[in-house]
Amino acid sequence: MTHFPFAPLTYMQRRDAFIQLVGSGTYLFLGNHEVAFNYEDNTYPFRQDSTFLYFFGVNLPNVFAVIDADKNECILFADDIDINMLIWTGPQPLVSELAEMAGIVKVLPTAKLPTYISNRTAYLPPYRNKHLLLLSEWLGLPVAAIKSGPSDKMIEAVIQLRSVKSDDELALMNEAVDISEDLHYAVMRSLKPGKYEYEMVAVAESAVRNFNARFAYPAIATINGQVLHNHEYHHQMRDGQLFLLDAGAEHVSCYAGDLTRTFPVSGKFSNQQKEIYDIVLDAQNAVVDGLKEGVYYRDMHLLSATVIFEGLKSLGLTKGNTDEAVMAGAHALFFPHGLGHMIGMDVHDMENLGENKVGYGDGVTRPTEFGFRSLRLGKQLKKGYVLTVEPGIYFIPALIDLWKSEGKHPDFINYDALEAYRSFGGIRIEDNYVIEKEGSSRIGYNKLVNSADDVESAMAG
Amino acid sequence: MTHFPFAPLTYMQRRDAFIQLVGSGTYLFLGNHEVAFNYEDNTYPFRQDSTFLYFFGVNLPNVFAVIDADKNECILFADDIDINMLIWTGPQPLVSELAEMAGIVKVLPTAKLPTYISNRTAYLPPYRNKHLLLLSEWLGLPVAAIKSGPSDKMIEAVIQLRSVKSDDELALMNEAVDISEDLHYAVMRSLKPGKYEYEMVAVAESAVRNFNARFAYPAIATINGQVLHNHEYHHQMRDGQLFLLDAGAEHVSCYAGDLTRTFPVSGKFSNQQKEIYDIVLDAQNAVVDGLKEGVYYRDMHLLSATVIFEGLKSLGLTKGNTDEAVMAGAHALFFPHGLGHMIGMDVHDMENLGENKVGYGDGVTRPTEFGFRSLRLGKQLKKGYVLTVEPGIYFIPALIDLWKSEGKHPDFINYDALEAYRSFGGIRIEDNYVIEKEGSSRIGYNKLVNSADDVESAMAG
Repeated sequence: MTHFPFAPLTYMQRRDAFIQLVGSGTYLFLGNHEVAFNYEDNTYPFRQDSTFLYFFGVNLPNVFAVIDADKNECILFADDIDINMLIWTGPQPLVSELAEMAGIVKVLPTAKLPTYISNRTAYLPPYRNKHLLLLSEWLGLPVAAIKSGPSDKMIEAVIQLRSVKSDDELALMNEAVDISEDLHYAVMRSLKPGKYEYEMVAVAESAVRNFNARFAYPAIATINGQVLHNHEYHHQMRDGQLFLLDAGAEHVSCYAGDLTRTFPVSGKFSNQQKEIYDIVLDAQNAVVDGLKEGVYYRDMHLLSATVIFEGLKSLGLTKGNTDEAVMAGAHALFFPHGLGHMIGMDVHDMENLGENKVGYGDGVTRPTEFGFRSLRLGKQLKKGYVLTVEPGIYFIPALIDLWKSEGKHPDFINYDALEAYRSFGGIRIEDNYVIEKEGSSRIGYNKLVNSADDVESAMAG
Repeated sequence: MTHFPFAPLTYMQRRDAFIQLVGSGTYLFLGNHEVAFNYEDNTYPFRQDSTFLYFFGVNLPNVFAVIDADKNECILFADDIDINMLIWTGPQPLVSELAEMAGIVKVLPTAKLPTYISNRTAYLPPYRNKHLLLLSEWLGLPVAAIKSGPSDKMIEAVIQLRSVKSDDELALMNEAVDISEDLHYAVMRSLKPGKYEYEMVAVAESAVRNFNARFAYPAIATINGQVLHNHEYHHQMRDGQLFLLDAGAEHVSCYAGDLTRTFPVSGKFSNQQKEIYDIVLDAQNAVVDGLKEGVYYRDMHLLSATVIFEGLKSLGLTKGNTDEAVMAGAHALFFPHGLGHMIGMDVHDMENLGENKVGYGDGVTRPTEFGFRSLRLGKQLKKGYVLTVEPGIYFIPALIDLWKSEGKHPDFINYDALEAYRSFGGIRIEDNYVIEKEGSSRIGYNKLVNSADDVESAMAG
């Protein structure tokens, strides 16, 4: 819990860069607290705020910091434990030792914090209700005012710094994805008809825990891949079904991996499954070929939509002019989510700072059309951005029925042909890439296979 | 997530019993919501409020209920999902179907809730900050007023009903403890020198997941058993050390198990370890022999303290008159926590309603002395109570040094003899018992061994 993945100098440089960007003012950074599971003392596993970790490194609850850009000063607010607590928690590092690890000179008890802030102090958007209450109390403002009061200048400076990953950060992200690849292999080797989805979660969770890591987000482990955020695991798996696993590890440093593979429960894809699988893989490969600094991710999303629509046309499921169909959003019946998102310490990196502030801007605004509007990242890519590439094809009965009943896109969709796919489910393939000057690199070992043949071989072996 | 472990009639009977107890008034029951992990849409695994589950069964977020005792009416407030949500969550049961499963006739959209409550509506103590904010908004009162406003009458009625477990509930608690026993066996069989604590957590978590269950509380899995609530798992285990595992499963019905065993990492206890182990087991057995309806659990705590002090005297670590020593609290140097607590859907059952309201009352008040004050349950036991029995002996260097430096209890403690135990760690043995008219029954398979010899045999086999 008190591991600092970077040297004190790194944290100092990040704070200096922040002060350079904002120029003036006082900035409050709120560390997270413990959250009650079913009563106050039975808590969920602690998760520190990612921005707090980025600038101050202290991975413990109830710690706060203020950066005063006018005075060029950083103060850490935290309290040492007393002997009564020590019986329960064991010896803990002194607050002064934590500060030293983060290159911070000035430390004060938390009780002093209110005297260092005012209603002109900048803060980031609170995503924990405790922070709403604390800010309301400390700044003397109603909760509604706190919600509307986060500082755009502060948000933009944090996004600018955290978006570009350093080599040190990339090393940790590679470790997070290595563990994520391992968990996918462990599940692939355990999969067979008759087992339950939750048994696969057991395998995945155990694989992650064996690296003292945890899930970066609730695993999607389901025979119903067409349900995009499915967190139920109670189905027994049968021969002929697909099993979609979207699971990634959070490394002890808190950097995340986010991988998806879709496996045949029996170890062998049917022809119908393999045809769809190959289209998803084509979309993935087309995007990866195009990724590099300067490209707009919005265009990569449209590229993947185009490959998917074309592929489905070759199977007779779609028809008409592909460019017109994609412009009209007809592909979104099969691919209703975005191609990907930034990833870092947060699996949707910095999402708490505002999706559109992280993924859009510089003249690129978020689309509003169904499907396209779910794209979290649209803007021009820079060297050092890390993002997910995760195209998918899904057959969602309720959505098919709705579009058909509304007579939507009859020139682009062969509704009759879809009948044979009603119980197909869904396929997604997802990897994580870092953007480079002239291309991109896949994060991790790169040992996790992604072609249908290789998946079958790996499951057989 | 939408599994109802009981028949509709059971929920109706519980609500009727509640109305009988309170007689009149309006009562608001708040279901839990999702909690942000590192941003709003990346949530911790959902946990419904236990009292909400007890009366209404609905294991889904953002559901509320009002019981109007004057009108003898129950209303469920919840909203059906729309097609946009359905893509992400898959088809969900209708709110009307959920209500039927809980025997509830009247269902309304959540937006209607505020018109059914007033600042005279009773509510339970909020342990989630979201509830503080919601109550503040709905009742038009400041957060401080909400914190001081929970209804004692409502709290007492809920405690009276939930304290006594029905046969249906006991069946589920037996399943929770069965899984908890399995996890302990799995860890016992995996333990060996060179492994890391987190690898044992991986084994435990996997064992629990294989029953579609989860941990009822953060596992304590440590070579530092003397740290009572140790949630760090990064140590490598060495020959000669003890490994303390305090871990229990939460069954899909949300009933909890809570077991502790202490294993020798090598598979063999040293003589020193076995001597201490046997004292803890003696304390456990003495309490279990005494457990039955009508007994005060405060007296069971003192009984275990007496056995522990006597046992340590036989080793030369304590001295003097045992009764006087226990009255003076000298045993608390080695046994600084309580003997046990109620358990049900919450591992510390109903702790959010107030520890002293659950565990004390009827003339029994909570002690204030160090050690004794950590006893959560002191009152007279009734048939159907389920509780933990968890004596332990710990050698906490910082506490020993403090007492020694303060010259505390020189007539009862042989500080010199303690030097040979400074790096001993701690031993705890914990099982769950249901109170009966003429005794008690251990919950679960009862296959998890608890003598030092049996532990060694199980580890060898």
